[in-house]
Amino acid sequence: MSISLFIGSSSIGTSNSLKFLSPASKTGSFPPSSSNSITFHRKKVSQGSLVIKASGSEKKVELLLDSIKWDNKGLAVAIAQNVDTGAILMQGFASREALAATISTHKATFYSRSRSSLWTKGETSKNFINVIDIFLDCDRDSIIYLGKPDGPTCHTGSETCYYVSVNDYLKGSEVKKNMLALTTLYSLEFTISQRQAELGAIENGKPSWTKRLLLDQKLLCSKIREEADELCRTLEENENKSRAAAEAADVLFHSMVLLKNKDVTLEEVLQVLRQRFSRSGIEEKNSRS
Amino acid sequence: MSISLFIGSSSIGTSNSLKFLSPASKTGSFPPSSSNSITFHRKKVSQGSLVIKASGSEKKVELLLDSIKWDNKGLAVAIAQNVDTGAILMQGFASREALAATISTHKATFYSRSRSSLWTKGETSKNFINVIDIFLDCDRDSIIYLGKPDGPTCHTGSETCYYVSVNDYLKGSEVKKNMLALTTLYSLEFTISQRQAELGAIENGKPSWTKRLLLDQKLLCSKIREEADELCRTLEENENKSRAAAEAADVLFHSMVLLKNKDVTLEEVLQVLRQRFSRSGIEEKNSRS
Repeated sequence: MSISLFIGSSSIGTSNSLKFLSPASKTGSFPPSSSNSITFHRKKVSQGSLVIKASGSEKKVELLLDSIKWDNKGLAVAIAQNVDTGAILMQGFASREALAATISTHKATFYSRSRSSLWTKGETSKNFINVIDIFLDCDRDSIIYLGKPDGPTCHTGSETCYYVSVNDYLKGSEVKKNMLALTTLYSLEFTISQRQAELGAIENGKPSWTKRLLLDQKLLCSKIREEADELCRTLEENENKSRAAAEAADVLFHSMVLLKNKDVTLEEVLQVLRQRFSRSGIEEKNSRS
Repeated sequence: MSISLFIGSSSIGTSNSLKFLSPASKTGSFPPSSSNSITFHRKKVSQGSLVIKASGSEKKVELLLDSIKWDNKGLAVAIAQNVDTGAILMQGFASREALAATISTHKATFYSRSRSSLWTKGETSKNFINVIDIFLDCDRDSIIYLGKPDGPTCHTGSETCYYVSVNDYLKGSEVKKNMLALTTLYSLEFTISQRQAELGAIENGKPSWTKRLLLDQKLLCSKIREEADELCRTLEENENKSRAAAEAADVLFHSMVLLKNKDVTLEEVLQVLRQRFSRSGIEEKNSRS
């Protein structure tokens, strides 16, 4: 059984930068200025709420809103990003009121140009995007809503709105909604899923290494233990950086094959990490049953 | 020594979806229609180039450009994202010509509204964003340039343009350019860096678990081996999914502490993975010395 303590809170003042590390109980108080009565949805996001103190918050929010370079229609680009996977979920526009609503309700809110009104993503589908922090760019005219979606973001049912690959289009491939804009880790996870889906099919020649691992638990586990050992040896035997990177890649890949076998996604693993490192080590230890 | 073969090429036709899996030698031919003479910068991105065949490509590109819903200024939002980490690097606007240039040169190109001209990110700083694929959203009015940056993207020298946290602002914290919009894994990596930076400081009380691991190689390696073993046992002993997610989180966290000790970033590990799984297993094996 694991008894690891994760990131402990330090006696050195670094709280400024540890925006995900404060226990939710110390934060999460909501501004009295909010006219929006939507209850903050906490099903999936238990940590790292936007920190707004009851007193003086209104003025600070106003100053923040004043600092944005709204365009001549009073809008700025707003990009919603999954805090765990980094996937860009959707892009819309925020008005001053939309950003204020997002700050107060913690739900990604946009200005709908077609309907000329505020629009909270999820108000119809219930797939809200629970915003944990908001980032502004250097020019103050572009906004990231960093949050956790309750479900698929796209109105088509796709996880994200970005499922048309120009590579595929130019190759003449059909557009598939599961072909999302995947970064390296999730592209690899998707490929492992494909190998798993192909397991029943008749093959010519030897199955791929991934398939062999998926079919042979003993082989898979022996590889995970071996790769972990090799990663350790890069430290113990003072091997070079590129060896360490290669062995960590081995550990990660083989662990991902095991996760696929257990039907666990990387996103679920990252959610565990986020929830752990948002507590102090002691709290983490005590929270384990 | 590791002799792992990564994702092998399958005999089953799945090439549509394996956009990062084709050897560069089979792709990477550039369109004759390109009037842009910039040489594609391949320093970091050795695989997965945009696939454009010499014949018929012009028409396909034109059809693609026609399918975009350009706004009344002829622009669409273009977001540059790091293919390995998922970090949103910057956001600008693309015109028809800017998107065409990005497709042909593989370098993220925008339309500068202030200068009323095309602008290739990196043309001054040499920090190009080497585009591996481009994604369009469901409405065809928002574009992701998924690529690998040669260096910091922001004109301020910051890795990305998004370094102003609304959480921090509302708490009254000073804006720091290293406080990027970090997703879970990179937020954790940053925290481990902080713990390492604090190692020299005088502490009251017991150091955090992370610091203990950073200070004690023997402890760290014993934990990595132990956690890898526990991850394997979730499969061997048929433990539940949440145990598997928790043990994978343990393996990942402890491996990240080792990587910090070796001064290796997660991005470097992901780059190794991307370069590996873009080859067939055989090629991967043969490429190892």
